[in-house]
Amino acid sequence: MIRGALLAAAMLPLTLAASTQDTTVDVTGAQPAPRNVILIIGDGMDDQQITIARNYLKGMEGELLLDGLPMRGVAQVLAYADTTSKTPVYVADSANTATSMATGEITSRGRISTSPGDDQDITTIIELAEQAGYRTGLVTTSSVTDATPAAFAAHISVRVCENPDAMVQVTYRDILLGDCSNDLKANGGPGSIAEQLAVSGVDVILGGGMKHFEPNVEGSNQSVLALAEESGFTTLNSRDALAASAPDQRLLGLFAPSHLPVRLRGENGREAEAPEPSVLNSVHRYLGDVEQPAVMNCEPEPAFEGTPSLQQMTDIALRNLSHKNDKGFFLMIESASIDKKAHERKPCGSIGELEQLEEALASALAFSATQPDTLVLVTADHSQAAQLIPYESLFARYPIPTFSPGKVARIRTPEGSVMVVNYATTNFVMEEHTGANVPVFGNAAAVGYVAPYIRQPELFDLMRDYLDLN
Amino acid sequence: MIRGALLAAAMLPLTLAASTQDTTVDVTGAQPAPRNVILIIGDGMDDQQITIARNYLKGMEGELLLDGLPMRGVAQVLAYADTTSKTPVYVADSANTATSMATGEITSRGRISTSPGDDQDITTIIELAEQAGYRTGLVTTSSVTDATPAAFAAHISVRVCENPDAMVQVTYRDILLGDCSNDLKANGGPGSIAEQLAVSGVDVILGGGMKHFEPNVEGSNQSVLALAEESGFTTLNSRDALAASAPDQRLLGLFAPSHLPVRLRGENGREAEAPEPSVLNSVHRYLGDVEQPAVMNCEPEPAFEGTPSLQQMTDIALRNLSHKNDKGFFLMIESASIDKKAHERKPCGSIGELEQLEEALASALAFSATQPDTLVLVTADHSQAAQLIPYESLFARYPIPTFSPGKVARIRTPEGSVMVVNYATTNFVMEEHTGANVPVFGNAAAVGYVAPYIRQPELFDLMRDYLDLN
Repeated sequence: MIRGALLAAAMLPLTLAASTQDTTVDVTGAQPAPRNVILIIGDGMDDQQITIARNYLKGMEGELLLDGLPMRGVAQVLAYADTTSKTPVYVADSANTATSMATGEITSRGRISTSPGDDQDITTIIELAEQAGYRTGLVTTSSVTDATPAAFAAHISVRVCENPDAMVQVTYRDILLGDCSNDLKANGGPGSIAEQLAVSGVDVILGGGMKHFEPNVEGSNQSVLALAEESGFTTLNSRDALAASAPDQRLLGLFAPSHLPVRLRGENGREAEAPEPSVLNSVHRYLGDVEQPAVMNCEPEPAFEGTPSLQQMTDIALRNLSHKNDKGFFLMIESASIDKKAHERKPCGSIGELEQLEEALASALAFSATQPDTLVLVTADHSQAAQLIPYESLFARYPIPTFSPGKVARIRTPEGSVMVVNYATTNFVMEEHTGANVPVFGNAAAVGYVAPYIRQPELFDLMRDYLDLN
Repeated sequence: MIRGALLAAAMLPLTLAASTQDTTVDVTGAQPAPRNVILIIGDGMDDQQITIARNYLKGMEGELLLDGLPMRGVAQVLAYADTTSKTPVYVADSANTATSMATGEITSRGRISTSPGDDQDITTIIELAEQAGYRTGLVTTSSVTDATPAAFAAHISVRVCENPDAMVQVTYRDILLGDCSNDLKANGGPGSIAEQLAVSGVDVILGGGMKHFEPNVEGSNQSVLALAEESGFTTLNSRDALAASAPDQRLLGLFAPSHLPVRLRGENGREAEAPEPSVLNSVHRYLGDVEQPAVMNCEPEPAFEGTPSLQQMTDIALRNLSHKNDKGFFLMIESASIDKKAHERKPCGSIGELEQLEEALASALAFSATQPDTLVLVTADHSQAAQLIPYESLFARYPIPTFSPGKVARIRTPEGSVMVVNYATTNFVMEEHTGANVPVFGNAAAVGYVAPYIRQPELFDLMRDYLDLN
């Protein structure tokens, strides 16, 4: 490992170190350059999502900023059943995968940096980085209490326990979604995810989720937001406030009650729809015809107006984390709704959020040009349901009406063709995740440092070693 | 480009060349070492297929031979409509994608190394390699006349024109699949794919498709097989004959009437099946329950017995192509039925064929250890329908019966969990392809030579330049 070699050289006596060819060893006694890790997660951003976005945003023969990164490989996604037996589970969720990246350990779906079966807290890279004197940050388009950011700075048995009012027998329409009684402060636990973030050492937390900071802290008449302010956070709730913030402030920016609005939507809010076979076709599948959903354009989502973009949040985070900082920082940036819009069968939504990830990446790369000891990694946490299927069937010569058994969106691309996106993993109101390995990209610092094939928890090891954490 | 630098050094006067540090420059006047390209194509082998196979063959935390290759990236798959207007088509087939790899040009679905709209022949890498004095080979588990191998050594307007009896108004159950009247010899064309292969300069052709060589050559009472023998091929039709072949023979091995049998199948031949909702569930989707297909094992496919494996064919091809050959060779190896079994919704079949690809890769890598100037590339031609979906739904806490609207197979893995594979791109008897970019892998010779993101036709440029073809 190159990193190890440099460290070894740095530990040599001065005269010896000066005699090496390593020009990065500073013999004047000045501080070494700051070291930084920027981890960008596209939630659900698998190769289908990337290709769909590329075709729309850059054209079939075009190239995303992602595509130009010098390192590209894959990570195998891993999950266990919720026992201590290490039983493989082949399709993951954002809670266990964020735990893998944040801690290097494999856990079960729904868990936030706690171990499967025996519910032990697992130390995260943000906790290690803080202990070593690095600044840390979390930026996301979801609620900051959502699974992906949460796993980097909190520990709880079920992801739904986002605030003090959602800890015991958490239900949705009378359906039990989870219970975190063990994590109650009254039971010696650390409390909900929002309460943990409020007293965390994270320097910059930007995203959505104000509603999770409005309830009172367990056993107190102080809101979680007030607790965060008392703990040293400057709280923000608007794009203007974000723009007006100062570089020496610890920031907790919450720009929507829950997840942030997304940038794009289908025409008039349309999503993927079921093809409609004629009555004759229901008599026999060789007969009649099928009405496919009308071709549509993507259009701006009106609710996005006034929301800070992922890039705006990223720029502020980079400014504050690097301000008068000789040590360096760890920053996680998530474009969360590539996944959320895929669950909802809204391909235009996913495309716009992948574009937001591209913009955040542009900022990360621009920053790394100013501080070369910056490892920029981009990955997805798990694969998703959307599939790019043919506009004209491969079997169009057979005079039989054919159609997806799921839901499809037929999107007109700016280059003038039609792209068809299929969602057909389930009949439920939300699509399932899928189990394919996910892409990993890196900047120059990742070339030769990140292997072409890794297991997802190895991302933790790579980031820990880059920052020389123990 | 490293290649360019070495060539420049080789052209220097002897004394100068000898003074360089390039130890590969031979100052004794001997021939330079042979240069070879081995292109391995997993038909339909996208990241879903790779992960499904990895989980089954190596376990969730395991590693395929593919995963250990030092270079990994992706290729963007490109297709045009069948006009000269370069209109993008976002989902490809094996004919146009093989044409991309074989010629560097983008064409329309169904075409074999001919141009979209105006039907011009496009020179292939095998033709260029032959002209330059390289040996060439095609090895596949499909008919050797199928789209992927065909595009490397034939030119025809529609892929279905595989033999002299399938040239004019080709039909299946009275459905017109295509017409190659323009390619008839009587019309000045080169004839069917089988006829073109029979008189080609390819040195080794191994796979299935005997039935396409049994008809008589157009306008003749000689079979295509007899024409091939007359043209210098030693013809083979059994595994034993393959084993008994000699290294100095030009081989045409046809080991089945059509595609070769595959290695694995579902228990008792089972494939993916439709979940069956109860009658109550058909009244309202919140009611009743759903019977999922029974969990099954994969088992050996009895028909495979006696068939040469892809590795056996690869080993013979490598032996013959390298036998007393100072120049080098181009060899294309295809595991064809990863795709074909995915079309048929038979995940065990696809898994076994990915295992066959792994074995052929092992042979290619072993060969490249003996001749280091061997570029080994592995890729897929297009992505496919199969998706790895959860065994237990992500939404299992909701007491609602949920199920895939398509067909699913629930496979017991050797490590003792259950993996669920979903096929739901269409209600037709065959699944559609999908449009995601596909993986590209390479051996040491590919590191720094193949960029992490390429368009599929660039594979042709890379192979052409490696062999220094014009």
